[in-house]
Amino acid sequence: MDTINIGLIGFGNIGTGLVNALNQNSALIAERLGVELHLTRIADADTKRKRDAEYDPAILTNDANALLDDPNIQVVVELVGGLEPARTFVEKALRNGKHVVTANKAMLATFGGELWQLAREQGVALLYEASVGGGIPIIRALETGLSANGIKKIYGILNGTCNYILSHMQQDGRAFETVLAEAQAHGFAEPDPTYDVEGYDTAHKTAILASLAFQQDVRFSDVFVEGISRLKPVDLENARQLGYTVKLLGIARRDDADGRVEVRVHPTLLPQKNMLANVNGVFNAILVEGDLVGQTLFYGRGAGQLPTSSAILSDVMSIAADIARGVKATTDDRLRVKVGEKNLRPVSELETSYYLRVSVEDRPGAMAKISGVLASHGVSINSMLQSGERREGKAADVIIVTHRTREAELQAALQEIAATDVAKDKPFVLRVEEDL
Amino acid sequence: MDTINIGLIGFGNIGTGLVNALNQNSALIAERLGVELHLTRIADADTKRKRDAEYDPAILTNDANALLDDPNIQVVVELVGGLEPARTFVEKALRNGKHVVTANKAMLATFGGELWQLAREQGVALLYEASVGGGIPIIRALETGLSANGIKKIYGILNGTCNYILSHMQQDGRAFETVLAEAQAHGFAEPDPTYDVEGYDTAHKTAILASLAFQQDVRFSDVFVEGISRLKPVDLENARQLGYTVKLLGIARRDDADGRVEVRVHPTLLPQKNMLANVNGVFNAILVEGDLVGQTLFYGRGAGQLPTSSAILSDVMSIAADIARGVKATTDDRLRVKVGEKNLRPVSELETSYYLRVSVEDRPGAMAKISGVLASHGVSINSMLQSGERREGKAADVIIVTHRTREAELQAALQEIAATDVAKDKPFVLRVEEDL
Repeated sequence: MDTINIGLIGFGNIGTGLVNALNQNSALIAERLGVELHLTRIADADTKRKRDAEYDPAILTNDANALLDDPNIQVVVELVGGLEPARTFVEKALRNGKHVVTANKAMLATFGGELWQLAREQGVALLYEASVGGGIPIIRALETGLSANGIKKIYGILNGTCNYILSHMQQDGRAFETVLAEAQAHGFAEPDPTYDVEGYDTAHKTAILASLAFQQDVRFSDVFVEGISRLKPVDLENARQLGYTVKLLGIARRDDADGRVEVRVHPTLLPQKNMLANVNGVFNAILVEGDLVGQTLFYGRGAGQLPTSSAILSDVMSIAADIARGVKATTDDRLRVKVGEKNLRPVSELETSYYLRVSVEDRPGAMAKISGVLASHGVSINSMLQSGERREGKAADVIIVTHRTREAELQAALQEIAATDVAKDKPFVLRVEEDL
Repeated sequence: MDTINIGLIGFGNIGTGLVNALNQNSALIAERLGVELHLTRIADADTKRKRDAEYDPAILTNDANALLDDPNIQVVVELVGGLEPARTFVEKALRNGKHVVTANKAMLATFGGELWQLAREQGVALLYEASVGGGIPIIRALETGLSANGIKKIYGILNGTCNYILSHMQQDGRAFETVLAEAQAHGFAEPDPTYDVEGYDTAHKTAILASLAFQQDVRFSDVFVEGISRLKPVDLENARQLGYTVKLLGIARRDDADGRVEVRVHPTLLPQKNMLANVNGVFNAILVEGDLVGQTLFYGRGAGQLPTSSAILSDVMSIAADIARGVKATTDDRLRVKVGEKNLRPVSELETSYYLRVSVEDRPGAMAKISGVLASHGVSINSMLQSGERREGKAADVIIVTHRTREAELQAALQEIAATDVAKDKPFVLRVEEDL
């Protein structure tokens, strides 16, 4: 049986999972492919640490070039993560005519355009199923299964840490900090949770999905991002009473009228009956709406050693299957993006309804002042409720849900409210998605 | 730009949708593929009927051979449906070296083994994304995205008609017949609903999924099938009170111990919090559990002109993309099945818990007799409740939920209960799925 030689760069958590997954299913994979996948070499800066996986220690090196320059290696799996040296490694692998499989969403959301172009020039594949949604085969769904569709919108729950925290805040009414600490104790959140809870991880993934779905060169820096760290239990409780569930969503939508694409990440009020509202805990889900297929949803584990390895191996197998068929594997490149080609709609032009939590001095005329400012910017109020106890002279949270309005108008109104003598802070804003 | 010539056989509902979908998205598809899809010829026995689609009437013929023998046609789309003449057409197309795309689940669940083998011998592709789950790209997910996994189980809501009926029976407490009539009025059910409501459609699709997932030659005749027509509103209400939702599921599971696969279709009590329990109306969903990825779920429209066309076109595009890359397109044949190769577990060996509705003569000692029969077959009772009014001498429905037991034992007990003088009919059975 023929053999495909694989080199792995990055022997951390996911790399360890990949070695285990290969050990577990190599016979099944060989039987399906008709070729054997052979892990020839592993490179990692740390060659000493003990990993919870069986492997031949002789293949481990601290020199990535030993792998990148090895002419026997056909496929490089990059699991270093982050921007550098990952980008340099991937670039070198592609230039050396090797196929690359990566799970690196930060790298792709930052340098993807140039890397895909390089892969195309070199006639090799650069696959990245594991970069979004862990084990959920969402990249392939967009590339192949849904490829006859003009995509209208994508809504994704793309970060398990945030979804775990929000699910538990909603269930138990506990504070963000409390649930975060619990998530950290369970290993569902990093010691420094910023990358997850401030929405950056979701933004990287959303940029990748938007590029693919709309064939525009959307990068991380194009994404409007707000995280979940300012949410209070009272927001989740108010949302629930109003018929909503709060989820951190990556949203990418194309406006049919002018072809412009909006790309944003923020905590969102979703109608409770929506399928996404019922995705709980560390699970991820991506809703894709196409002009032929209508709404579809893809659900599964968005992280973890074995789910991520499932996605990585599916990419390696696609490359190996092409080689086995006697075809020089290349990206099946239906959804090409030209570097720099984009037509985006700024968030200031967003039109939706908004949930506002305003901390208001509890004295006569305060509410009249707030609603007056909103009205002067054309923001009309759908419902308003006082949250928590009222105590004369103390600040109280007032919850306002607006009618559909433009983000620019709303932000101008909030700016003005913050400057009044009755508001204690800048109002806290959540966006509502009704028409998804 | 190069052109791929397509012939369509079967110009009914889905065929009309396909022509519309092609008209709508041909520019987008050509841009993505780098080749144009050209519908060269359409064959249908009825060339007179007016179709709600724009097409050149000159390409319509009533002679399928005009298309099957046309050397310019590279891809044949078979939308005739049913066993014959569909099978003959597909066989001829394959023998003539043409790639075939089909939505025909009945044909594949009956003759699939031989047809796939023929396609392999001829070195052409036989693709069938549209045969299961309409627009949901579930076939591709199994073939590629999840292909590194040993699949453990598949649970599918695969028939929109049944799911519509069950959802509405559950919501409104209305009778099967009433909701069926409403579904027929809305066009969600056929004038003769047997194929859908008795579970045959779901069984065809389940056989296809099982073949693919477990690489065994599972056919329609291997599937245990029960439909939904005997369900009463009281069953849905009792299920709800017990914490379950009733869904018609196609189930395929592999026992790791002996490699045997069970394949069955029946109305099933699912825990309400399971994602599948929240799939309502005409939507379909398929839960797939792999040994690496864990549980994934794929959700979308399981039928309809455009969703089905989305799937058909994705297959045509895969073939066209290969041709455009200069590759002779063949099925990317990772999940091969050998004709006759199967290792199945009969339903008599199923072990689960059961919901029973027994119509019992309401007189002293009746319940003792029923429970005595169950006990004598080793079937132990978890809970029992009398449903509806009691009237001396009249029959009353008694609901029994058993502990985990073997199907063979249960059926023997039911046989004996039906023969007693206290039971009015053969008890009605629903199976419970706890561990999915």
